[in-house]
Amino acid sequence: MMGRKMRIAVVGPSNMLAHDVPPRIAALADQRYGADAPEIAFHPQCFMSDGHFAGPDSAREDALVEVANDPDVDAVWFARGGYGANRIAERAIGRMGDAARNKPFLGYSDAGFVLAGLLAKGIGRPVHGAMPADINRPGGEAAVARSLDWLIANSARQNTQDAQKYAAFNLTVFSQLLGTGLQPDLSDRVLMLEEVDEPMYRIDRSFFHVTGNVAVRKAVGLMLGRCTPITPNTTEFGIDEVAVARHWCDVSGIPYLGRADIGHDADNKVVAFG
Amino acid sequence: MMGRKMRIAVVGPSNMLAHDVPPRIAALADQRYGADAPEIAFHPQCFMSDGHFAGPDSAREDALVEVANDPDVDAVWFARGGYGANRIAERAIGRMGDAARNKPFLGYSDAGFVLAGLLAKGIGRPVHGAMPADINRPGGEAAVARSLDWLIANSARQNTQDAQKYAAFNLTVFSQLLGTGLQPDLSDRVLMLEEVDEPMYRIDRSFFHVTGNVAVRKAVGLMLGRCTPITPNTTEFGIDEVAVARHWCDVSGIPYLGRADIGHDADNKVVAFG
Repeated sequence: MMGRKMRIAVVGPSNMLAHDVPPRIAALADQRYGADAPEIAFHPQCFMSDGHFAGPDSAREDALVEVANDPDVDAVWFARGGYGANRIAERAIGRMGDAARNKPFLGYSDAGFVLAGLLAKGIGRPVHGAMPADINRPGGEAAVARSLDWLIANSARQNTQDAQKYAAFNLTVFSQLLGTGLQPDLSDRVLMLEEVDEPMYRIDRSFFHVTGNVAVRKAVGLMLGRCTPITPNTTEFGIDEVAVARHWCDVSGIPYLGRADIGHDADNKVVAFG
Repeated sequence: MMGRKMRIAVVGPSNMLAHDVPPRIAALADQRYGADAPEIAFHPQCFMSDGHFAGPDSAREDALVEVANDPDVDAVWFARGGYGANRIAERAIGRMGDAARNKPFLGYSDAGFVLAGLLAKGIGRPVHGAMPADINRPGGEAAVARSLDWLIANSARQNTQDAQKYAAFNLTVFSQLLGTGLQPDLSDRVLMLEEVDEPMYRIDRSFFHVTGNVAVRKAVGLMLGRCTPITPNTTEFGIDEVAVARHWCDVSGIPYLGRADIGHDADNKVVAFG
């Protein structure tokens, strides 16, 4: 840190960020940390718009590469989820250099495409946790504060040598990166999966897909995050998400290790992949 | 055929079939083929109900194995789509014997999980085409007649040695079987993919997933079936399904070979995998 303020850069590899988020985040940081508040710099790319995305692929890729490779940026925070990080993650990671090597990258949901790719390539320190846009959830300040607390406490540290390593993803996102260049090695890791806005039949299908993958079966075990809300099924599915996770763990031989305290909600906990 | 009527067995690895379908299919067959109409036997399992599914996994698996292994059954026709074939496909195929070796298995959509597994294991003759439940679509008689015509003309034949082999799937179904024991070898094949009831961002994400798979990149090329209807995107996606397919073909190096005449509609053509 060399005597200067900690600097967190926010970029948006997925959808455009609402303009009311930066002042709300700044106010929260001021209130929580006072003079010790980190500098939180929202990259202009966060507010670009190109169809579904926060700017064209090239702008989203370039912004991510820029902050990853900037030695004056202590941590990268993803602005929000949505969809689009998969379109630029592998190329962006391929352009990351030494400054990115030990830098935290914090986000979840669609940002999981980047976290997975970083883990796959051994670059940076991927961390699952709430993002700036979460401040607009009911109770979202607590979720955002949890991420900021973690970044302030951990950005200058090396990866810990915990007895157990983790990886945490949205179920659909993780399902859709299997077999691509973003698939991480889960050997010796516990895999946490959460879901949002999907009907039970799709949750079941995604667990079939994920647990049917030979490389995923190397994981130490699976923990089920919250699946909330669950979209209504055409006909009542008949079994819930816990029974579904247990079923596919049984079929695949992956140990089911119970619930994980993660999800698209204010209680979403920080999970450093380590 | 040994002088007896051709026998087509209908089973339902996915959702329950409506009771009005068998009489409508029988009437169509009588009208179209008269005294030469094949016997079309709907397995009682088609009408079972267990939560989302046409009976529990064991019943759906057993029914499929029973008709596959019955030497008096000339062809297996899947009753309808929905969801559930993935839960029983690999186990059922593992129990199939000599009687299944050259038998046609015809269906599409969720039944694609079985077609893919058969292709992966080199068992039977997987064929993409309309299913009995399609008779309740507008214009569905023509779609069903197309499948019956194909079965009557081809059941007794061996696989053709066409210059070009194909495989045809629903995009989401194909995406979700990648990396599992159901993934087929596509070397020397053209891959046709169609979609139904998905928003553009999911179509884009599925194409990312499918074309990101190293084994899929061995395909001769990709043809895009109809993607109809497309669910509204939260924000307008900005590019259509053709541009999306072309984009991911460009990224992955898979040749884009134009449109395929398949989809969840009355025009859905028969595609024998060969």
